[in-house]
Amino acid sequence: MLTSWIDGRYLPHRRARVSVDDRAFLFADAVYEVVAVYDGRFIDARLHMERLANSLDGLRIAPPMTSRALSLVARELLRRNRLRHGYLYLQITRGSAPRWHGFPDPPVRATVFMSVTHKPAPGESPARADDVVSMPDERWQRCDLKTTSLLANCLAMQDAIDAGGSSPWLVAEDGTVREGASSNAWIVTRDGVLVTHPLCRNILGGCTRGRILRLARELQLRVEERGFSRDEAGEAAEAFISSSTSFVRPVVSLDGEVIGDGGAGEVSLRLYEAFIDSLRRGDDLTSGLDDNDIRH
Amino acid sequence: MLTSWIDGRYLPHRRARVSVDDRAFLFADAVYEVVAVYDGRFIDARLHMERLANSLDGLRIAPPMTSRALSLVARELLRRNRLRHGYLYLQITRGSAPRWHGFPDPPVRATVFMSVTHKPAPGESPARADDVVSMPDERWQRCDLKTTSLLANCLAMQDAIDAGGSSPWLVAEDGTVREGASSNAWIVTRDGVLVTHPLCRNILGGCTRGRILRLARELQLRVEERGFSRDEAGEAAEAFISSSTSFVRPVVSLDGEVIGDGGAGEVSLRLYEAFIDSLRRGDDLTSGLDDNDIRH
Repeated sequence: MLTSWIDGRYLPHRRARVSVDDRAFLFADAVYEVVAVYDGRFIDARLHMERLANSLDGLRIAPPMTSRALSLVARELLRRNRLRHGYLYLQITRGSAPRWHGFPDPPVRATVFMSVTHKPAPGESPARADDVVSMPDERWQRCDLKTTSLLANCLAMQDAIDAGGSSPWLVAEDGTVREGASSNAWIVTRDGVLVTHPLCRNILGGCTRGRILRLARELQLRVEERGFSRDEAGEAAEAFISSSTSFVRPVVSLDGEVIGDGGAGEVSLRLYEAFIDSLRRGDDLTSGLDDNDIRH
Repeated sequence: MLTSWIDGRYLPHRRARVSVDDRAFLFADAVYEVVAVYDGRFIDARLHMERLANSLDGLRIAPPMTSRALSLVARELLRRNRLRHGYLYLQITRGSAPRWHGFPDPPVRATVFMSVTHKPAPGESPARADDVVSMPDERWQRCDLKTTSLLANCLAMQDAIDAGGSSPWLVAEDGTVREGASSNAWIVTRDGVLVTHPLCRNILGGCTRGRILRLARELQLRVEERGFSRDEAGEAAEAFISSSTSFVRPVVSLDGEVIGDGGAGEVSLRLYEAFIDSLRRGDDLTSGLDDNDIRH
């Protein structure tokens, strides 16, 4: 049984519970982060803490702990669970209060929850590939905030599976591919240009997305942050998704049509390798969870 | 301490808790209903059960209990809490499972939660009026389903309060007033026509909205179900909101500008009175929670 942490206590995961008055349970009034752990170290911890601070700010939830205190708990969870590879899940809710849509006044204590998940060490190449299905993006208009308002994402994910795929790409009314249900979306054009949607309120600024953009520039790839349509994706040489848990995962089909030659693309594989290599080098990992205080 | 009910047990409310793996906590993957109680009877129970069935269907959650079983628990909660006036809150989530966006496969047991809230008996006239503030509607595209994906509603509510009002009206990009954060929106034009937004995916089909439409026709009011703009609302003779907890509540200002003469409007008051009268008569109340089985 894994150990989790909630409201100041380490507990067996199955005993980690919250009040039915918790605003995450009633209203999706909560933010979260998923931080990859590689060889016992947090990956892109500083970026995750910055994004967490931004999400809390967007919801006007006062940070309940310093990032140093969050970091201490997170590291202790790794130790107690002997976690070497996997990820940390961290959720902060506005807290528990009698049900009413407005914020509790005076504010109540936020709920802070953390858990970990073990995964095998990442291999030399991606563990699997995705068959992507395009779905209308029915989400709300603040997808740049990493909140638990994820019902539309869940329904799109299940719709994609029911359609015979493995994950959805969420498409705007004008045909632009925004992102996946829990990942950013990428294509490589036949001219060899790496393309992903620019940051805006309709997509989440992935920490992994940021690292890939940097690695792509180091590899001297041509990169464009611009919208691409579902049709352009269908004609692309390669496609892949990025996330904190799968890093770079090739996309081999879109709506049942093969992309490129139907296998993992060359650029996708190079980026995956560069990604794993950057993790092995400890690139950026020295900026720990406690270097950046989310309480301004 | 009130008694609530969760996962088959009656408990003191403060002891009603859910797993951190509950999909309502993690994903807003849950539906709910708020059913008014008048003189110990459920109001519009059949409509609420139909809507609940529709919301469950929209999320593809298999109804975990018959409406007869839900009804038995609901009635027992009224009895244990000696509830005469107030409301019942009922939430059904997809259940608890390791975090993953797709539906648990095989499905897990749904979480069913019910609680009650006491309120004073409704008076001869509305207890208070609203000062409404228009806010952009940033919600997702399935607001016809009554889900706990309510973060946008909560933020709009607080924004309205911070702007000096008491609740928001959510306005589409084209200027159309859709509804409130937890209510339907109505105006009475200077020609005496009662207007409210037609049913569609962008608004919730309120049970109280339905009863008001019926009462309005009985009162031989002219009724139009059509979009109205924020500007048309500003020029209206009267405005009000409707919900299961406030029935008919006059709106006396919009964005700080007085509506009509700044007091509760004549049509609003007539509808409130007709509403309370219909509750006293027991109109429709004979169709109980157990008359309609949500398990098809």
